[in-house]
Amino acid sequence: ERPRDLGIPFGILPVGDLNSITDVSGVKVGHFTKVEGENIRTGVTAILPHGDNIFQQKVPAAVFVGNGFGKLAGTTQVMELGNIESPIILTNTLSVAAGMEGVIRYTLSQSGNESVGSVNALVGETNDGYLNDIRGMHISPDEVIQAISSAQSGPVKEGNVGAGTGTVCFGWKGGIGTSSRKLPESLGGYTVGVLVQTNFGGNLQIAGVPVGEKLGKYPFRDALEKADGSCMIVIATDAPVLDRNLERMAKRAMMGLAKTGGIASNGSGDYVIAFSTNEGLRIPYGNKGLINFNELPNEAMTPLFMAVIEATEEAIINSLFAAESMTGRDGNSVEALPKEYILNLINLKKE
Amino acid sequence: ERPRDLGIPFGILPVGDLNSITDVSGVKVGHFTKVEGENIRTGVTAILPHGDNIFQQKVPAAVFVGNGFGKLAGTTQVMELGNIESPIILTNTLSVAAGMEGVIRYTLSQSGNESVGSVNALVGETNDGYLNDIRGMHISPDEVIQAISSAQSGPVKEGNVGAGTGTVCFGWKGGIGTSSRKLPESLGGYTVGVLVQTNFGGNLQIAGVPVGEKLGKYPFRDALEKADGSCMIVIATDAPVLDRNLERMAKRAMMGLAKTGGIASNGSGDYVIAFSTNEGLRIPYGNKGLINFNELPNEAMTPLFMAVIEATEEAIINSLFAAESMTGRDGNSVEALPKEYILNLINLKKE
Amino acid sequence: ERPRDLGIPFGILPVGDLNSITDVSGVKVGHFTKVEGENIRTGVTAILPHGDNIFQQKVPAAVFVGNGFGKLAGTTQVMELGNIESPIILTNTLSVAAGMEGVIRYTLSQSGNESVGSVNALVGETNDGYLNDIRGMHISPDEVIQAISSAQSGPVKEGNVGAGTGTVCFGWKGGIGTSSRKLPESLGGYTVGVLVQTNFGGNLQIAGVPVGEKLGKYPFRDALEKADGSCMIVIATDAPVLDRNLERMAKRAMMGLAKTGGIASNGSGDYVIAFSTNEGLRIPYGNKGLINFNELPNEAMTPLFMAVIEATEEAIINSLFAAESMTGRDGNSVEALPKEYILNLINLKKE
Amino acid sequence: ERPRDLGIPFGILPVGDLNSITDVSGVKVGHFTKVEGENIRTGVTAILPHGDNIFQQKVPAAVFVGNGFGKLAGTTQVMELGNIESPIILTNTLSVAAGMEGVIRYTLSQSGNESVGSVNALVGETNDGYLNDIRGMHISPDEVIQAISSAQSGPVKEGNVGAGTGTVCFGWKGGIGTSSRKLPESLGGYTVGVLVQTNFGGNLQIAGVPVGEKLGKYPFRDALEKADGSCMIVIATDAPVLDRNLERMAKRAMMGLAKTGGIASNGSGDYVIAFSTNEGLRIPYGNKGLINFNELPNEAMTPLFMAVIEATEEAIINSLFAAESMTGRDGNSVEALPKEYILNLINLKKE
Repeated sequence: ERPRDLGIPFGILPVGDLNSITDVSGVKVGHFTKVEGENIRTGVTAILPHGDNIFQQKVPAAVFVGNGFGKLAGTTQVMELGNIESPIILTNTLSVAAGMEGVIRYTLSQSGNESVGSVNALVGETNDGYLNDIRGMHISPDEVIQAISSAQSGPVKEGNVGAGTGTVCFGWKGGIGTSSRKLPESLGGYTVGVLVQTNFGGNLQIAGVPVGEKLGKYPFRDALEKADGSCMIVIATDAPVLDRNLERMAKRAMMGLAKTGGIASNGSGDYVIAFSTNEGLRIPYGNKGLINFNELPNEAMTPLFMAVIEATEEAIINSLFAAESMTGRDGNSVEALPKEYILNLINLKKE
Repeated sequence: ERPRDLGIPFGILPVGDLNSITDVSGVKVGHFTKVEGENIRTGVTAILPHGDNIFQQKVPAAVFVGNGFGKLAGTTQVMELGNIESPIILTNTLSVAAGMEGVIRYTLSQSGNESVGSVNALVGETNDGYLNDIRGMHISPDEVIQAISSAQSGPVKEGNVGAGTGTVCFGWKGGIGTSSRKLPESLGGYTVGVLVQTNFGGNLQIAGVPVGEKLGKYPFRDALEKADGSCMIVIATDAPVLDRNLERMAKRAMMGLAKTGGIASNGSGDYVIAFSTNEGLRIPYGNKGLINFNELPNEAMTPLFMAVIEATEEAIINSLFAAESMTGRDGNSVEALPKEYILNLINLKKE
Repeated sequence: ERPRDLGIPFGILPVGDLNSITDVSGVKVGHFTKVEGENIRTGVTAILPHGDNIFQQKVPAAVFVGNGFGKLAGTTQVMELGNIESPIILTNTLSVAAGMEGVIRYTLSQSGNESVGSVNALVGETNDGYLNDIRGMHISPDEVIQAISSAQSGPVKEGNVGAGTGTVCFGWKGGIGTSSRKLPESLGGYTVGVLVQTNFGGNLQIAGVPVGEKLGKYPFRDALEKADGSCMIVIATDAPVLDRNLERMAKRAMMGLAKTGGIASNGSGDYVIAFSTNEGLRIPYGNKGLINFNELPNEAMTPLFMAVIEATEEAIINSLFAAESMTGRDGNSVEALPKEYILNLINLKKE
Repeated sequence: ERPRDLGIPFGILPVGDLNSITDVSGVKVGHFTKVEGENIRTGVTAILPHGDNIFQQKVPAAVFVGNGFGKLAGTTQVMELGNIESPIILTNTLSVAAGMEGVIRYTLSQSGNESVGSVNALVGETNDGYLNDIRGMHISPDEVIQAISSAQSGPVKEGNVGAGTGTVCFGWKGGIGTSSRKLPESLGGYTVGVLVQTNFGGNLQIAGVPVGEKLGKYPFRDALEKADGSCMIVIATDAPVLDRNLERMAKRAMMGLAKTGGIASNGSGDYVIAFSTNEGLRIPYGNKGLINFNELPNEAMTPLFMAVIEATEEAIINSLFAAESMTGRDGNSVEALPKEYILNLINLKKE
C-alpha cells in the first residue's frame, strides 16, 4: 500500500491511473538492481521519454540545478539546445562514467545511428556509499544497457530498486519513488509524472506533520545527525511545453522537495530534469527546415507548476514508504521508515 | 501577538531577539505608507544593510530569481559585481521608476558622493492593483527618500505598512512580515533575518495544516480563484558569506515560501535578495588593492540554508497575521486571515 | 559616407538595403537629442519591434549580459517569459528611471491598454558623464515619450544623436551606429539588424588593423588611459526564432564587439537585447490557448550567428565614423576619430 | 618557430617566459597521444592546477559556456562550489566517460584519499571524428591516467598531440596551442596562461588579416564548407581571484576566439575553464572553519581580462602553426596551415 492508499493527503489535484511517471504516455522505466555479497548495494534506473530512437527523435527538455554538488553529466547541451537525445540514467556517484559509456554504446548501436559520432548522455547520481562499496565502481556499461533494455511502461517498482537500491533519506532507507497528476480537462487535461531517487536529509514532514522532530531525527540535533545527501528528480509531461517552460516546471520540483522537509544542504546534488513527450514537439535529428509547433503559452503554465510540486512531494514520500530496511557495506544498516508509528501520528492529527 | 507567540511552530532553530530582520546587527528598515482617499493604498519599504554610506562601503550580495514575472531593477549589476551599493527599496509595480529615482537622488546627495555618476538602485515590487490605483503611480521619489530616511533598527512594523499596504496573499490581506534565526554557537552563532512583501497565491499551509483547503480558498477551485501574485524576499545575515554562497542562501528562500503553500505561479515576480552585513566583508568604493577577508567555506553553509527556509516561512505567515482587512480601489475589499478559526484548526491538530 | 562606402571591409555576408536595423521589416527607431548650454549632452533612443501595440502583441526576445556593470532594467522578465512588451529605450545611466516612467506612461495610455496594471520596461544606458552633466538627470519621461513617438522606419541617424549624444568610444567620440546583414536565400533569406550605443574602451581595431596602437590610444598605455565604459547592443531579426535561440544570437554580439578591440572591462555595462519581428511569432496578451508557430531549428542558426557578429562589428565602427567632435560638461572635449589617417592606414594595408 | 617568433603581433601585453600556460607557477600539462593504424588519431591532454593532491587542496575555479553543444562533464559542481578538485582532462567526444573513470581512479588511489567517495571529474572534449575512428572509443581510463602522470611544468608540446591529435580548425589541421601574458608590475605582475584544443570553424583571421577569405575557406562559401566544431579553452592564473571573477575572465576567452574569426557555430561545444593557482586561495577538503583570503577586487580585473583575450587569440593561432598535415580515418586528410603563404600575406600588409 502506498501512502495515498493509507489516507495520507498530497494536495488537491487528481492523480493519474498508476500514480506514476509512466502515466505520461510513452514513458518507460527500467531498473537494474545489484545486491551482491555484503558490500554491493547499488543499481541503475533508466527513464526513456519514448520507445523509439530518441537520438533521431529528440524531445524538448530542460535541467534545473537545485544544488549543484553532484555530477549530473550532459547538462550544458540540454540547456543550450533545449532537448534530450538519449535515455536518462540514474546511478551512484562514482558510476556516472559507466552510465555515459552505456548510453553511448546503446545509442551508437541503434538502427539508424550508424554514422552518429556525438551523443549527449544525461546521467545523474546520488551517493550510496553508506550502504554500498561505492569506491568499487561496481556498475558496468553493460548493466546500464540492461536497465535501458528492460524499460517498460506500466507500474514502476519503488523503494530499494535500481538507482535507489542503496540510498538513505532523512535518516531512513530511501530509494526510488514516483507519482503523477492529471489536470482536469478545464485546465488542459495534461499529465505530469515525477520519478525521484531519494538520498537526502532535512527535517522530514509528511502531510505537514513534523515527523523528523517527533522521531528525534533532524539536522544538527547532535553530532551524529547530518542533513547531507542528494535528490535526483525526473519530470515527464505530455503537455506541449518547450524548454523554457520545462525549466520553469523543473524549478518547482524543489518546492515539492521543500514540503517534505528537504533543505538542499551544501553537500546535496539536487537536479531536476524535465521533458515533454508531446508528439507534436519531437525534434528530428539533422533537420534544418522550419518546424511547426503547437505550444502552451506562459499563461497556461500555473496548473502544471502545481502538478509538479504535488507529484514531487508525493514521489519522495512514496520512496520512503516503499523502501525496506537494508544492511550493506561494512555491516552498515539503515532502517525502513516506521510506517505504523507515522500513520498513528498523522491519523491522530486528522481527527 | 505574532503566530509564534500563539503557539504556532516554525522549525527547530532558535529565533533572534526581535524575530526580525533587524536582529542582524546594523540593518535598518523604514516604511512610507500611503493611504489616501478611496483609491490609494500603497507605500514603500526601505531596507538598509548598514547605517553608513552604502555606496562608499558596499556589502556582498546576491539575487535569486524564483520567478521573474516582475520588475526588480538592479539585478544584473548585483550578479556581476557581487555587491549592493544602495538601500533596497520595495514598492508597487508601476512605481519602480520612482524608487530608482529616489535611491539615486538620495545617493548623489550623500556626503562623500559628490562626484558619483553611477548608482545601482535595487528596487523590487509587487502588484497592489486590486486595492490600490496602481495606474495612478502615486509614489514620488521624495516619498522613497522618506522611507529611507525613516529607517531604523529595532522592531519592524508588519502587515498593512509600507510596500505591504495594499497587497493580497492566498486570498487574504497580505503585507510586510519579518522573522529571524540565530544559530547556536556550535554552528557559528550567526543571525539570519528575512523580510517579505507578500502578494502571492497558492494553497495556504500553516504549520503543515492545509488551511487553504479547509477554508475553500485554493488555486483552480473555481473561476474566481487565482494563484497569481508575487513575493519579494530580503535576507540579511551577519555571517561572513560572499556573493556565491549568498546566492545559495537566496535560493533556499523559495523553499520556505513553498512550505506556506506558495507555488510560484506564472504571473509571480518572486525574487530573493541576500546580503551580508559582516563588517570584515565591506567593499570600499574605488579600491584596487588586495582585500583581506575571512569567509565561511561551503561546508559551513547548511545551517544558514536551514535558517533561511525557516525564517522565510515564518515571515510570510507573520505578514498574514499582522495584516488587517482593507477596502480600497473601486470598493474592492480584502479580509484579514480568520485567525481564530485557524488557531482552532491548528490546535485541534496539536492534541 | 559610411565606412563600408569608403572601402572598409566587414566580413562576407551581404548587407541589407539601408545597412541598418530598420532593414528588418517593421522596426522603427526614434531619437531625442538634448544638447543645451555648456553641460547637457545627452538623449534617448527608442527601438520599436513593430508599429502596433507592443503590449498586446509581444515579440519573442532575449537578453545576454556581456558584462553586468550597468543598469539595464527589465531583464529578468524578458528572461523568464521570453518576450518584450514595450519599446526598448536607451539613455544615460542616471536617467533609466525616466526611461521606465516614460515607457510605462506611454503603454498605459495606448488604446486597448486601459486596464493594464503591469508593464515591463526594458531601459538600457551608458554613462555619458564625461561630456554630460549626468548628475543633473536631465531626461524627463516626456522626452522619452517623444523619442518613442518620433520612431520611424527608414534610415537611422548615427553618431551624436539620441542616446549616443554624449558617449565616448576607444577614446574618440562614440554614439549611435547601426548595420545589417541579409542572408542569401539558400540560407533562409532572413535579415539581421543591429543598433549600438558605443561608450566603451579597449584597443581599437578597424578591418583588423590595430588603430588604437598606431594612434597611441590603448588600455594601460599610461595612467591617463582607461578601458572602461559600456556598450548597449540591440539586435532585430525577421527570422522565426524564439527566446532560446535569440539569446544565443545575443551572445554572439560580444564576439563582434571583440573584433573592434573591445575588452568588456570591469566597469562596462555590456548588454545585448535580441528580438524577432516575425509576424508568426507574435504573443497575444492574455491568451491561454495553444499557440501555433513555425520556428527555425538549432541547426539553422549558424548563419544568423555570423550575421550578428558581422553587423555588430560594423555598427560599432559606423558609430565612430558618424560621430563628430564635441565639447561639453566643464569644457571636457572629445575628438572625432581621425578618419583620414585611419583610411590611409587601412588602404596602405590593402595594397 | 611560433607565430610570435615569425613576427606576427598579438596585442600589447608582455608574454611569459615560455609563452605557455605553464608560465603560471605550479601548472603541469601532460599529453597522451594515440596514433595507431589507419584510423586511430586521438589522445588526451591533462592540465593540473598544481602538483599536490588536488582533491585535498582544491583551487578556485569557474566554467563559462560559450556554446554548449558539447559534453564537458563536471560543470555544475564547479559552478556551485566555485572550485576544482581534480586534474582537468581534454579528449574526444565519445571518450569523456573514459576521462571521468580515469580521473576518479587516479583520485581514489592517491595517498590521503582512502576514504573519498565522491570526485568531480572535469572532462572536456572536441569531436575528432573526421580523422579519428571516434565511434571506436579508443581511449581507456589507463591512458587518461598516463596523461595525468606524465604532466610536467616547462614547455608544452603544441599541435598534433594529446587531445589535439585529430582536430581540425578553420578547415586546416588544428590541435593543442598555448600562450601566456605577464602583467607589468604596475598592474599587479600576475601571469595568465591559456591552453586550447582547437577544432572549430569560421572565417580565419590572423593579425587581423582575413586569411580565410584569401584562401577561399570560410563558412557558407559553398555546400562543402562548414563552420561547425568546438574549442576547449583552459585558463590558469596566479592572480588571487575567486570563482566569480574567474568566471568573468573565462567569459573573455570567447572574445579572443572571436578575434581569430571563430563564430561559435550551432554545433560547437565552446567551454572555458578558469582557475587560480594562488597558494593563498587553496580550499582544504573538509574544513568548516573560516578561511582567510587576500583577493583582488573587481576594480583590478580589467588587465586580467585583456590578458585572457590576447592569450586566447595567440594560443589558437599557435595551435594552427604547430599542427602538421595528417591522414586518418578512411583516408580522410587535413592539411597544415599554409604558413609561408600566410606570412607573405601578413608581411605584405605590414609594409
